[in-house]
Amino acid sequence: MTTPDTTRVQGTSLSPDKVMHKLVSLAKRRGFIFPSSEIYGGLSSCFDYGPLGSEMKRNIKELWWNAMTRRHQNIVGIDASIMMNPTVWEASGHVASFNDPMIDDRTTKRRYRADHLIENHIEKLRRDGKDADALRVQMTYEACGASEEPNRALYELIIDEGIKAPDTGSGDWTEVRQFNLMFQCNMGAVADSSGVVYLRPETAQGIFVNFHNVRESSRMKVPFGIAQIGKAFRNEIVKGNFIFRMVEFEQMEMQYFVKPGTQAEAFEAWREERYQWYTRQLGIRPEKLHWYKHDKLAHYADLAYDIKFEFPFGIEEIEGIHSRTDFDLSRHQEYSGKNMEYVDQVTNERFIPYVVETSAGCDRLFLAILSDAYSEDVVDGEERVVLKLAPKVAPVKAAVLPLMKKGGMGEAAMKLRDELAESFPVQYDDAASIGKRYRRQDEIGTPFCITVDHQSIEDGTVTVRFRDTAQQERIDMSQTAAFITAKMA
Amino acid sequence: MTTPDTTRVQGTSLSPDKVMHKLVSLAKRRGFIFPSSEIYGGLSSCFDYGPLGSEMKRNIKELWWNAMTRRHQNIVGIDASIMMNPTVWEASGHVASFNDPMIDDRTTKRRYRADHLIENHIEKLRRDGKDADALRVQMTYEACGASEEPNRALYELIIDEGIKAPDTGSGDWTEVRQFNLMFQCNMGAVADSSGVVYLRPETAQGIFVNFHNVRESSRMKVPFGIAQIGKAFRNEIVKGNFIFRMVEFEQMEMQYFVKPGTQAEAFEAWREERYQWYTRQLGIRPEKLHWYKHDKLAHYADLAYDIKFEFPFGIEEIEGIHSRTDFDLSRHQEYSGKNMEYVDQVTNERFIPYVVETSAGCDRLFLAILSDAYSEDVVDGEERVVLKLAPKVAPVKAAVLPLMKKGGMGEAAMKLRDELAESFPVQYDDAASIGKRYRRQDEIGTPFCITVDHQSIEDGTVTVRFRDTAQQERIDMSQTAAFITAKMA
Repeated sequence: MTTPDTTRVQGTSLSPDKVMHKLVSLAKRRGFIFPSSEIYGGLSSCFDYGPLGSEMKRNIKELWWNAMTRRHQNIVGIDASIMMNPTVWEASGHVASFNDPMIDDRTTKRRYRADHLIENHIEKLRRDGKDADALRVQMTYEACGASEEPNRALYELIIDEGIKAPDTGSGDWTEVRQFNLMFQCNMGAVADSSGVVYLRPETAQGIFVNFHNVRESSRMKVPFGIAQIGKAFRNEIVKGNFIFRMVEFEQMEMQYFVKPGTQAEAFEAWREERYQWYTRQLGIRPEKLHWYKHDKLAHYADLAYDIKFEFPFGIEEIEGIHSRTDFDLSRHQEYSGKNMEYVDQVTNERFIPYVVETSAGCDRLFLAILSDAYSEDVVDGEERVVLKLAPKVAPVKAAVLPLMKKGGMGEAAMKLRDELAESFPVQYDDAASIGKRYRRQDEIGTPFCITVDHQSIEDGTVTVRFRDTAQQERIDMSQTAAFITAKMA
Repeated sequence: MTTPDTTRVQGTSLSPDKVMHKLVSLAKRRGFIFPSSEIYGGLSSCFDYGPLGSEMKRNIKELWWNAMTRRHQNIVGIDASIMMNPTVWEASGHVASFNDPMIDDRTTKRRYRADHLIENHIEKLRRDGKDADALRVQMTYEACGASEEPNRALYELIIDEGIKAPDTGSGDWTEVRQFNLMFQCNMGAVADSSGVVYLRPETAQGIFVNFHNVRESSRMKVPFGIAQIGKAFRNEIVKGNFIFRMVEFEQMEMQYFVKPGTQAEAFEAWREERYQWYTRQLGIRPEKLHWYKHDKLAHYADLAYDIKFEFPFGIEEIEGIHSRTDFDLSRHQEYSGKNMEYVDQVTNERFIPYVVETSAGCDRLFLAILSDAYSEDVVDGEERVVLKLAPKVAPVKAAVLPLMKKGGMGEAAMKLRDELAESFPVQYDDAASIGKRYRRQDEIGTPFCITVDHQSIEDGTVTVRFRDTAQQERIDMSQTAAFITAKMA
C-alpha cells in the first residue's frame, strides 16, 4: 500500500475562464456533453448529454427522486405532459407577464433585450469614468418602469443615448415590444389560431392542475407533496455559460401542500433538508454553497430563498425554495371554475392549501457538480486531472483492468466486468499502461479501479485502487461487487 | 397456508370496449394516468402519468436502459436535446416527406385527413351494400397517388363523391394540402423566419448526428450501439386509444452500427434479444405478441419487422426492428459536409456503417403491459381485479399492513415500511379491513403484502402474501427486504 503525494488544487489557482474552458473540453472529449447537432454548426445554446453525461444525469435524477418521493411517505411523483391546455398558462400568469422587452435591429435582423442594452451602456459609461452620465442614464432607466408606456420609454432612452448593438455596432432599431418567453406551436386538429399550444416554461403547473387527481388517487392528507422531473422550455435571448442557461432544460420540482398558517414551519424544514441533500447526498462542498434571501418577492410569494453555487463564472442559483401561498391553486380555481379547496376530514375545515416549493435546475446542478469535482493534483509524482465525484453520482462506478491481457488476466478481468455489470455501470480497459488507464478513469471520476494481476490468477484476489487517494487495497475477487456496493452506500 | 380458488379470466370474456373502459377508469382512479390539464377540459390526446404511472414508467425505462446499455459492453447511451438544428430534418427527409394530406372545412374550422375521409366513405359504401360504387371509388382513390397532382386528385374525388365530415356532416372544403407532422416553433434570437426549429419527431436523429462524438469519446469499434430514451412529438390529427397514439410520446431507441454486409446477422440477433426482453424481463405473455414483417419497405430499409401486441382494440405495433442501411449517415454526410465514414484501425477499411435499429414506444408499451396484466378472478370466494404485473415493473413492490393499529402493530409496521423504503417503493396502509387492503394492493399490482399481526409482536415474524396466488408464507421480519429482493430478481 502506498501513500501518494497528493496536492489537491481543485482548480482554485486557475482563472475562471480557464476552468470553464477545461470543463467544456473535458466534457466533450470524454463524452459528458456535446454541442447539439454539432455537425451542422450546433443550435443556439442546446447541448446533448453523451454516454457519461447521460449516466451521470440519470444518477442525479434518481437520487433526487428517491430522496423526494420514496423516503417520504407523504410525497408522490407524477410525470405530466409538456403540452398542456393553453388556459393553464393564462391562469399561471405566463401569457400576460412572462415577457422580456425586446428590440430588433432592422439591418442585421438580430434581436436584443432592451433593458440589457441600456444596462450595458451604463456599465460602459462607468468603465470610461463618465460617472455623471452613468448616473443620469441610470435614473432615467429606473423611471421607465413607472412610465405609462414603459416600452416607449426604453426605446426613447436607447435612441437618445445613441446606444448600438454591442456585437455588430449597428443601431437600426425597431420599437421595443414585449416578447413572451414561452415557445408556441400550433396543434393540427383545428385550422385557426385556437390551436396554439405552449411548451411549458416550468413543470410546476403540471402539479397544480393535478392537485385533486393526485390527492384522491393516492389518498393523501395535507400536508403532502407532489414531485416531478421534466423538461421545460424558455425562449430566452440571453443564454450561455455552457449548460447553465439553455432554452431547453430539465427541472426537478416538488410542491408541498400545507394548511395556511403552517407554511413558515414547512419552509424551514425544506430549507434544511434540501441543503443537506446537496452536501450529504451529492457531496458538494459546503463552502461552495450560498443562501440568498429574496428581498423583492414575486407577487405570489411570502418568503423565498435560493441555494446558490459558486460556479467558475460567478455565484448563481441552482435551487429556489419559495413559499408561494395559495396563489397557484386560487388562480386555477378562478380560471377553471373547479373547486380547489381541501377539506380536512377530521375538523371539516375547508381551505385552499398553501404551497412550499423546492425547484432545482437539473442541468445547472450537473454543471455545479462537475465544476465542484474538477481537480488537478499530483499523484506518484505525476500530474493528473481527477473528477472527485461522489460515488453515487459518478457515471462509471468501477473499471476492471487486467495488468496484461495474457496469462488468463484478460479473461478473468472480462468475467469480473460482466459480473459487476449486473449491479452497476462498469468499464473494461486493457489498452495502454496501467498508469495511463488509471488516469483515464480519474479523469471521468470512476471511484474504484479493480486490477487483475498475476497474483489474481494464483489466489483469486484483486487490488482496488481508490480514486481520490490513489491508495490500494487487496480484496477477494468474489467480494468485489459487495465491497464496492458497501463503499457507495 | 391457504390455496385459494383462483380463476384467471384476465378479461378475455369481456368485450374490447369494456376492457378499455375498465383500464382507463382504473388508471385514473388509482393514479396511473390522468387526462392532461383535466380541470380545463384536457388537451387533445395528452395524458399525465400519476403517482403509480410515473413509477411504473420509470421501471420500464430503467429495465430497457439496463438491458440495452449496461449489459452490453459495446452499447452506450446518450440524451440529446429535443430541439436540433433544422438542417437535421432536411437531411433526415422529414421536412420534405413527413406529411399527411389535409383538408379543412371552412365552416367548422375543423381539419381532416383527406385520405381518411375517402377511406371512410368507401367503407360506408360497402356497409350499405353498394359494392360496385365502393369498387369504383377505391380504384379512383388508388390512382390518386400516381397522379401528377395527387392532392388535387384527392380533392376532386372528395368533391365528386360529395363526401362530408363524419363528425359534423359539413363539407365546405378547402383544397387538399400537405401538412407536415413536425411541430414548429420560433427561436427568439433572430427576428425572421430563420429562427424556425422543430420538435423532434423521432429520437433517432440525435443518435446519428452524434455518431463520431460518441465513437471517439467512448473509443468504440464497429459493431457498436447508441441507445436513447426521450420525448418525441408528432402533430397527428388521428389520435386515440388512450395513450396508444399521442402527439407527445416517449421513444426508447437503439441504433446499432455495423459493417456493411453484416446487417442481416445483427438484425437476427436483435430480433431474438428484443423479443426475449418482452417476455422474460417484462413478463408479457408470448401469446399476446406477434411478429409482422414489412412487405413494403421504406426507401431506406432493406429489412423490417415489427413486434406487435394484442391490445383490446387490435393488434398494434409496440416496437420496430429495422435494417436502415447507410441511409441516415450518408444523408448527414451529404447535408453537413462532414465525413461520416468509419475507419477500421486493423484493416484500414473505410465505410459508412449500416444501421440496425430497435425502436420501441414507451407509452404504448406501458399500455400493453397494463392490458396484459389486467385480470379479474375469484380469490377466497370473492371477486377481485388484479394487475398481474411482473414484480420489476410493478410501481409498488410491497405494502406493509398492520392487522390492527393497536398493540404495537401500527408502530412495528411503520418501522418496517421505513426500512423497506430504503430498497424499493413501498406503501403503508392501516385503513379498512385486511381483505379490503389486499384488494387495494391487488388492483395496483403490488406483488407482496406484508402483514404485521399479533404473532409479529411476539416472535418478530410477518406474513408475506403473494398477489397472484393469494397464498401466504411466514418469514422473519428482519429478512423482509432480502426476501422480496430475491423474489424480484
